[in-house]
Amino acid sequence: MLSLATEKAEVLIEALPYIQKFAGKTVIIKFGGHAMVNKELEKMVLQDIILMKLVGMNPVIVHGGGPSINTWLKKVGIESNFVNGLRVTDEETMEIVEMVLCGKLNKSLVSSINEMGGKAIGLCGKDGSLIEAEPKKALVKSKNGVEEEVDLGLVGEITKVNPSLIHTLTNEGYIPVISPVGIGSKGESLNINADHAAGALGGSLGAHKLVLLTDVEGIYLGEDKDSLASKLSAQEVNKCIERGVINGGMIPKVESCLKALQWGVKHVHIIDGRRPHSVLLEIFTDEGIGTMVVK
Amino acid sequence: MLSLATEKAEVLIEALPYIQKFAGKTVIIKFGGHAMVNKELEKMVLQDIILMKLVGMNPVIVHGGGPSINTWLKKVGIESNFVNGLRVTDEETMEIVEMVLCGKLNKSLVSSINEMGGKAIGLCGKDGSLIEAEPKKALVKSKNGVEEEVDLGLVGEITKVNPSLIHTLTNEGYIPVISPVGIGSKGESLNINADHAAGALGGSLGAHKLVLLTDVEGIYLGEDKDSLASKLSAQEVNKCIERGVINGGMIPKVESCLKALQWGVKHVHIIDGRRPHSVLLEIFTDEGIGTMVVK
Amino acid sequence: MLSLATEKAEVLIEALPYIQKFAGKTVIIKFGGHAMVNKELEKMVLQDIILMKLVGMNPVIVHGGGPSINTWLKKVGIESNFVNGLRVTDEETMEIVEMVLCGKLNKSLVSSINEMGGKAIGLCGKDGSLIEAEPKKALVKSKNGVEEEVDLGLVGEITKVNPSLIHTLTNEGYIPVISPVGIGSKGESLNINADHAAGALGGSLGAHKLVLLTDVEGIYLGEDKDSLASKLSAQEVNKCIERGVINGGMIPKVESCLKALQWGVKHVHIIDGRRPHSVLLEIFTDEGIGTMVVK
Amino acid sequence: MLSLATEKAEVLIEALPYIQKFAGKTVIIKFGGHAMVNKELEKMVLQDIILMKLVGMNPVIVHGGGPSINTWLKKVGIESNFVNGLRVTDEETMEIVEMVLCGKLNKSLVSSINEMGGKAIGLCGKDGSLIEAEPKKALVKSKNGVEEEVDLGLVGEITKVNPSLIHTLTNEGYIPVISPVGIGSKGESLNINADHAAGALGGSLGAHKLVLLTDVEGIYLGEDKDSLASKLSAQEVNKCIERGVINGGMIPKVESCLKALQWGVKHVHIIDGRRPHSVLLEIFTDEGIGTMVVK
Amino acid sequence: MLSLATEKAEVLIEALPYIQKFAGKTVIIKFGGHAMVNKELEKMVLQDIILMKLVGMNPVIVHGGGPSINTWLKKVGIESNFVNGLRVTDEETMEIVEMVLCGKLNKSLVSSINEMGGKAIGLCGKDGSLIEAEPKKALVKSKNGVEEEVDLGLVGEITKVNPSLIHTLTNEGYIPVISPVGIGSKGESLNINADHAAGALGGSLGAHKLVLLTDVEGIYLGEDKDSLASKLSAQEVNKCIERGVINGGMIPKVESCLKALQWGVKHVHIIDGRRPHSVLLEIFTDEGIGTMVVK
Amino acid sequence: MLSLATEKAEVLIEALPYIQKFAGKTVIIKFGGHAMVNKELEKMVLQDIILMKLVGMNPVIVHGGGPSINTWLKKVGIESNFVNGLRVTDEETMEIVEMVLCGKLNKSLVSSINEMGGKAIGLCGKDGSLIEAEPKKALVKSKNGVEEEVDLGLVGEITKVNPSLIHTLTNEGYIPVISPVGIGSKGESLNINADHAAGALGGSLGAHKLVLLTDVEGIYLGEDKDSLASKLSAQEVNKCIERGVINGGMIPKVESCLKALQWGVKHVHIIDGRRPHSVLLEIFTDEGIGTMVVK
Repeated sequence: MLSLATEKAEVLIEALPYIQKFAGKTVIIKFGGHAMVNKELEKMVLQDIILMKLVGMNPVIVHGGGPSINTWLKKVGIESNFVNGLRVTDEETMEIVEMVLCGKLNKSLVSSINEMGGKAIGLCGKDGSLIEAEPKKALVKSKNGVEEEVDLGLVGEITKVNPSLIHTLTNEGYIPVISPVGIGSKGESLNINADHAAGALGGSLGAHKLVLLTDVEGIYLGEDKDSLASKLSAQEVNKCIERGVINGGMIPKVESCLKALQWGVKHVHIIDGRRPHSVLLEIFTDEGIGTMVVK
Repeated sequence: MLSLATEKAEVLIEALPYIQKFAGKTVIIKFGGHAMVNKELEKMVLQDIILMKLVGMNPVIVHGGGPSINTWLKKVGIESNFVNGLRVTDEETMEIVEMVLCGKLNKSLVSSINEMGGKAIGLCGKDGSLIEAEPKKALVKSKNGVEEEVDLGLVGEITKVNPSLIHTLTNEGYIPVISPVGIGSKGESLNINADHAAGALGGSLGAHKLVLLTDVEGIYLGEDKDSLASKLSAQEVNKCIERGVINGGMIPKVESCLKALQWGVKHVHIIDGRRPHSVLLEIFTDEGIGTMVVK
Repeated sequence: MLSLATEKAEVLIEALPYIQKFAGKTVIIKFGGHAMVNKELEKMVLQDIILMKLVGMNPVIVHGGGPSINTWLKKVGIESNFVNGLRVTDEETMEIVEMVLCGKLNKSLVSSINEMGGKAIGLCGKDGSLIEAEPKKALVKSKNGVEEEVDLGLVGEITKVNPSLIHTLTNEGYIPVISPVGIGSKGESLNINADHAAGALGGSLGAHKLVLLTDVEGIYLGEDKDSLASKLSAQEVNKCIERGVINGGMIPKVESCLKALQWGVKHVHIIDGRRPHSVLLEIFTDEGIGTMVVK
Repeated sequence: MLSLATEKAEVLIEALPYIQKFAGKTVIIKFGGHAMVNKELEKMVLQDIILMKLVGMNPVIVHGGGPSINTWLKKVGIESNFVNGLRVTDEETMEIVEMVLCGKLNKSLVSSINEMGGKAIGLCGKDGSLIEAEPKKALVKSKNGVEEEVDLGLVGEITKVNPSLIHTLTNEGYIPVISPVGIGSKGESLNINADHAAGALGGSLGAHKLVLLTDVEGIYLGEDKDSLASKLSAQEVNKCIERGVINGGMIPKVESCLKALQWGVKHVHIIDGRRPHSVLLEIFTDEGIGTMVVK
Repeated sequence: MLSLATEKAEVLIEALPYIQKFAGKTVIIKFGGHAMVNKELEKMVLQDIILMKLVGMNPVIVHGGGPSINTWLKKVGIESNFVNGLRVTDEETMEIVEMVLCGKLNKSLVSSINEMGGKAIGLCGKDGSLIEAEPKKALVKSKNGVEEEVDLGLVGEITKVNPSLIHTLTNEGYIPVISPVGIGSKGESLNINADHAAGALGGSLGAHKLVLLTDVEGIYLGEDKDSLASKLSAQEVNKCIERGVINGGMIPKVESCLKALQWGVKHVHIIDGRRPHSVLLEIFTDEGIGTMVVK
Repeated sequence: MLSLATEKAEVLIEALPYIQKFAGKTVIIKFGGHAMVNKELEKMVLQDIILMKLVGMNPVIVHGGGPSINTWLKKVGIESNFVNGLRVTDEETMEIVEMVLCGKLNKSLVSSINEMGGKAIGLCGKDGSLIEAEPKKALVKSKNGVEEEVDLGLVGEITKVNPSLIHTLTNEGYIPVISPVGIGSKGESLNINADHAAGALGGSLGAHKLVLLTDVEGIYLGEDKDSLASKLSAQEVNKCIERGVINGGMIPKVESCLKALQWGVKHVHIIDGRRPHSVLLEIFTDEGIGTMVVK
C-alpha cells in the first residue's frame, strides 16, 4: 500500500511539466449532446475540467444538446424539416431549443461542477450580448437545377463575439458553461451550431486549444485502426476531403476545426469523449489522444 | 415647442436630488410572472431599470413565471397537486419549471434589456451557487386534526446566499436578472418562491430597497380607495393581519415583506406593476407610489 | 396628478439614449462673464452641469468675467487701453483680473455647485501648471501703413496644456471650474482669452463637445430668425466669413470654434446662455439648440 | 574646493536620519501674511517645502494675508470695525478678503513653487467643501457690565474638515496651498483665522507637525534671550498664561497651538519665519529651533 | 498502455479535493541538512514543492546544513565546543556557518528549483531584516550544582519576524528558500536553529502546516513499528515526554513542534524525508504520513 | 553655531535640483572588492546609497570580492591558474567563490545597510534566474602561434538578464545587493565579471547611470594630474586605446564601460572609491567627479 502511494505521487510529478506549460492558457472544451448522455462519463469530463482550472488553466465549456432537444420536440409534438441537413427552426422550435439548452442542460452542467467543488456559471450567447448573430440562409438546388436561397428560420451565423464578460468571470475563478444560442439584431434568439460557437469563442479569447469531445477516436486516414492520424495540418485536411478520405459526417466536424484555426485558435483536437478522462489524457500526456489539427 | 423642451429639462433637473440620494445603492426589483404578461408594460419596467443603472444605482432583477409555467405544464400534460397553496413539485414538474424560468423567461428579459442598450446577464440560484436551499416541508392538518409534515418534493427553502458573483457583475456594469431556482446539497434544482428569493438576495446584498411589482396598488386598510396606506411599520402590518384588515392573497405578499426586513433590507415597497413606469415613479418622486413597509 | 407623474417618467426615459451616448465623455462648458450676470440663469446652468456629472459625463467649466473685471478696474481707478480690441494688460490690471477671476468668480461658482450637492473644485491655469502661456504680440498698422508688433503686456497665448490634474480630479468625482489665467515661463500670470482656454483644454482632454454659452442664439446666415444655422462645417464657416455673412463681434467667436476643432475637439456648439437650461437642451435633445460647428 | 564638496556631502548624510524619521508624515506649515512680505525669505520657505516633498514628506501650506488685505481695503476705501480684536466682516469686506487671499496671494505662492520645480495647487476651504464653517459670535461686555453676543458678520468658526481632496492631491505629488476661507451652510464665504485653519486641517489629516512661521523666535519665559523655551507641554503653557508670563499678542498664538493639539496634531512649533531656511532647520536638526508645544 | 494512462488520470483526479482544500494556504517545509545529503531525494522534495506552488499553495522552504558545515569547519581546521548540545559559535565559526548556509546550500537549492521550472529566490534572516534575533544564553549546572549562564557566542534566539518581504515574493510567484541566519541588533549574524526559524516563520506567516522533513518515520509511542502515532495533541506530547516515551534526540524535535503551535501554526508534521515524495504523500493523501501534532 | 546650521540648510537646498533631476531613475553602483576593504569608506558608500533611495532614486548595488576570494582560496589550499588574466575556475574554486560572494560579502553589505536604516536584500544571479550565463572560452595563442580555444571552467558569459525580480523589489522599497554569480543552462554556478554584471543589469533595467567605484581617479589622457578627462565619448575612448593613451589594467575597465553603453546604459562613470562620499559627489554636483563615458 505504501508503494502504491509513492506511485501516485510520481504520477502527480509527471503532470508537472504539463501544468507549467499550460498555466494561464485558455482551453475551450466543446461538449457534444451525445457525449452528455452517459452521466458517468459526463462526471469524468467535468472532473477533468475542474482540475484544469485548479492547476491554473482557463477552461471554457461550450455544450450541445441534440438528443435532448429531439426528445422534447417529440414530447410537445413538433416535427422538423431539414434543409441540407440543417433543421429549419421556427419560433416554436426555437423556444424548445432555448429552454432545453439554457434552462435544462446548461444549468445541469453548472450544478454538477459546483457539487464537485468547482465554481461554474451558466451563460448563453444572449448574456452580455456574448454571441451576436444573424439569420443564416441555405443554398439549395431546386428541381430545375438552379441554386436558391432557402430561409432556415432562426438558425444563426455568428457575426461578433464580445468576450469581456468571459474574461471577468474566468479572472474571478469561475468556469463558464455556454449554450450556443446567439442574439440577433432585434434581440431574437438564434440557434447556433455548437462547434462553430466553440471555435468563434476560442478565436476571440485567444484560446490555446479547442478540444472537440466527439464519439469517434479521431480522424482516420484509412479503413483500419492504425490509420488514426495524430496530427494533421489544415492543408492535409483539405487534401483528405478532396480525395474522399475524410467523408460523410466527418466533413462538418473537420470544417469546424478549420474555421476555428482561421479564427485564431492555435490547436484543435478531435478526441473520443467515450473514453474515461479523455480531456486529461489529451492535456497531460506527451502524445495526447485523438487527432490534432493545426494551421 | 420650445417651451415644451424647457419643461422637459426641468423634469430632468427635478430628478437630481433622487439621483444623488440613491447613487451606488442596490435596489432589488421583484418582477412577477403576471407583470411580465403585458409586453408594453414589461418594456417600460426594463427601461426604468436601465435608467436606474445609468444614473448610478445597482438594480438587480428577480423574476417569477407562474402563468408561463402553467401553460407549459398543461402543454406536456402534467397536473399539479397543491398543499397549503404550494405546488407539490416532482422531478418532471421541476424540469419544466427550470426550463421555463431559466431558459425562456430569464433569457427573454436579458435580450430585451440588451436590445434597449443595457448590459444584462441572466443567472439562476445554481450559478456560482448563488442561492443554496433545502427541501421544504409543509405542515398539514390531517382529518383527525393532528398536524403532519407533508413532503412538497422539490420546493426549496433558502439556507444561504453567496452574493460575490453579483458584486463582480454589478461592478462591471451588468444588470443581473435572476431566476428563483435554488441549488440543493446534492446539486438538485429546487423551486424557490420568487418573493423570498428577492428578499434574501436583498438582505445579503445590503439592498436599500426591495420593490415588489404586483397587480394591486398597495396595501389597503379599508374598503375604499382612500384607505391605501403609503407607509406601514412591521408592527402595524402584524396588527393589520391580526385584525383581518390584511387578508387573503395579500397575506403571503406582506409576509415576504416582513421577512425581507428581517434579512436586512431597509425599505420594501409594494407597488402596482400595471401602472406605466411605476418603478421610476417610486424612485424619483418624493411621495413615491404604493405602500412602503419598514422596520 | 397621477398622469402628470407618468409624463415626467416618460421625460426621464427619453433622456436614456442621450445618457448612454455621452457616458464617460468629456464636455467643456465655456461660461461667459455676461452669462454669469443673471443669478437665476447661472443656477440653471450649474444644475444642468451637476446632472451631467451624475449621469456619467465629465463636465469641465471654463468661465470668463469681463463685466465684473470692468467694475473692479473702475472701482480702483484703472483705465485700460485697447489694441485691436484686446485690452493692454499691465501688472496692476493683471492683479485685478486675477483677483476677480480666481478669487471672486471662480470660488463663487464652486460654492454654488457644492451648495446644490455637486463636488466642485476651483483652479486656474497656474495650479499644477495647467495652462502654460507666453506673452502675445498684436500686429497693428501704424499711420504710415506699416504693420508693427505692439506689446499687449500680460496678455497670454497658450503654449501647452498639462491635463493630468484634471484627469485626477474628474476621476475622483469633482467638477473642475477653471479661470483663464495662464502661467508664463517666469511664473508670471497671463490673461488668457476664455474661449481659447476652453478650446485648448478641450483639445488636450479629448473633449467630445465644447459648449460656448453666449448671448446670441447661434450663427445666422441671414437677417431673419429662420436663417439660424443648426450645423456648419469649418469650411462653411470660413466661406461665411469671406462673404461677410458672419461679421462683427461674431468673428472672434467662430474663430475660437475653428481653433478648438483644430486642437481636436469633435463638436463645438454656440448656444444661447440666456435660455433656461440651454446646456441640457443641447445635450438631451436630438435636434439640440443653437449652432454646431464640426470639422 | 575639493574638501568643500566632501563637507557638503556630509551635510546631506547628516540629513539621512531625519528623512527616514519623517518619511510619509504630514507637516502643516502656517505661513503668515507678515512672513510673506519679504520675497527673499518667502522663496527660502518654499524651497524648504519643495525639498520636504521630494524627500518623502507631505507638506501642506496654509497661508494668511493680513497686510495685503489691509492695503486693498484702504485702496477701495473700506474701513473696518473691530470687536475683541476681531475684524467685523461685512459682505463688501469679505469680497476683498477672498479676492486677496484666493486670487492674489494663493496663486502667487502656487506659481512660485511651480517655477522652482515643485507641483503646487491652490485651494480654499470652499473647494471640495474642504472647510465647513458657521458664523462666529463674539461675547462683549456692554457698558452696564452684561455680556452680550455681538455679530461679527462673515467671520467663521470651523465646524468640519473634509480632507479627502487633500489626500487625493498629495498622493499625486502635489503640494496643496490653502487659503483660510470657509464655506457656510448657505454656500457663503466665511473669513477663518489662518492659525485655526492650519490646526484643524492638521488634526483631520493626522499631521505629525504643525509649524507656525511667525515673527518671534518662540515663547520666552522671561525677559532675556536665554529664556526662550525649546519645549513646553500644554499644561505648562496654561500655567504661563495664568502667571502672565505669556501675554499680549502671544496669547492668541499659543491658544491656536493648544487647539491644534486637541484636534490631534502631535507637535506644534512656533518658529521664527524671519530666519533663513527656518523650516528646514526645524525639521533637519536634532535640537530644532523655536518652541515646540506638545500634549 | 492505454489503460495505464487512464489510471494516471484517475490519480490526478484523486488529488482534486486536496488541491481545493489547500489552495492559497502557506506550508513551511523544514528541509534538514541530513535530508539534503541524498541528491535523488532532494530532487523529489523540490519537485513536490514546485507542484504545490503550481496548484495554488504557498510553500516556503527553511533549510539546515549541519553535515556540510561540519565538513567545512574541518576543512579550515576549526574545532567546536558544545554546551548543552549547542555549538558555541565564535566569529570564525559563524563566518563558515553563514558561507555554507547562505552561499552554498541556499543557492544550490535555488538553482535546482529554477532548473526544474520553478521560480525560487534565496534569502537569509538578514535580508529585509526577515529574522531579528539576540544572542542566546545557555544555563549550565556547574560542578558545585549551581546553574550558571554560559555565553554561546553568536547563537541567536528569534525576537521578531518581519514577513512582508515573503508576502511580496510569494505573491509574485516565487518560492522563498530561507537560511536560518538571523540579524542581531548591531547587524551581526546569528546562528539560528532551523526548526525554530521554520516555526517562527510559520507563525508570523499564518502557515496552515509546518512539515519537518526528518530521518525518522514520526513519533513512536512504543518499541515496535505499529506504535507510530499518526496524530498527537500538544498535551499528549507533553505527557509522553514526562513518561519518557519520547526521549533522547526526539525531545528537541518535538519541542520545536510545540513552539511552532504556540507561534500560531495550525498543524505540525514530523515526516520521514528518506521516503520518496514524502511531502506530496503528506499533503495529497487522507491519512497523511508520519505524525501530526496539533494544539 | 546658528550660522553653521543655516549653511547646512543651504547645502540641502543646493541638492534640490539634483533630487528633482534623478527622481525615479535607476543607478547601478559597481562596488569593487578592493573598495570594500576599508570599512570606513564602505560605510560612507552605503550611506550615500541609502540617501539616494530615500530621495527617490532606485540604486542597485553589484559587488565584487577579489581580495576576499583570494584569502579563502589560500585558506583551503587551492591554487589558481590564469589564462589571459582570467582565473580558470574549477568546481572547487567556484564553491569558494560562491560562498565568499553570496554567503559572506553580500550578506555583510545587506546587514550594514539594514543597520543604518535602509532596507536591503541580497541576491545572486541564480535567484529568480536573474543572470543567465554560459561557459566562456578564452582564445590563447599556442606556442606555434595558432589561436586555440581554452576552457576556463566555470567562468561565465552573460546570455540573458531577467530583471522582473529587481523591479518587484525596488518598487517595494528594497535596495538590491547583487553578487555576480550566474546560472548556467544546467543550473550550475558561473563566475561572472562584476563589471559586466553591472553593465548588463544596467542595460536591462534601463539604468540612467552606472557608477564604477574603482581605485583610480578616472581616465587620464596624459601623465600629469591635470590630464584627467571629465567626459569622453565611446569613440574617443576607442581612439585612446588605439593610441596607447589608455593602457594596462585600465583597458578591461573601459571595455566594460563601452559594453554597458551598448547594452543601453546612458552614462557610465569611473570614479575614485577611495574618496569619502564619492557616489554622492558624483550625483549631487554639477561637475561630478571622475570620468563620464557616454555614447
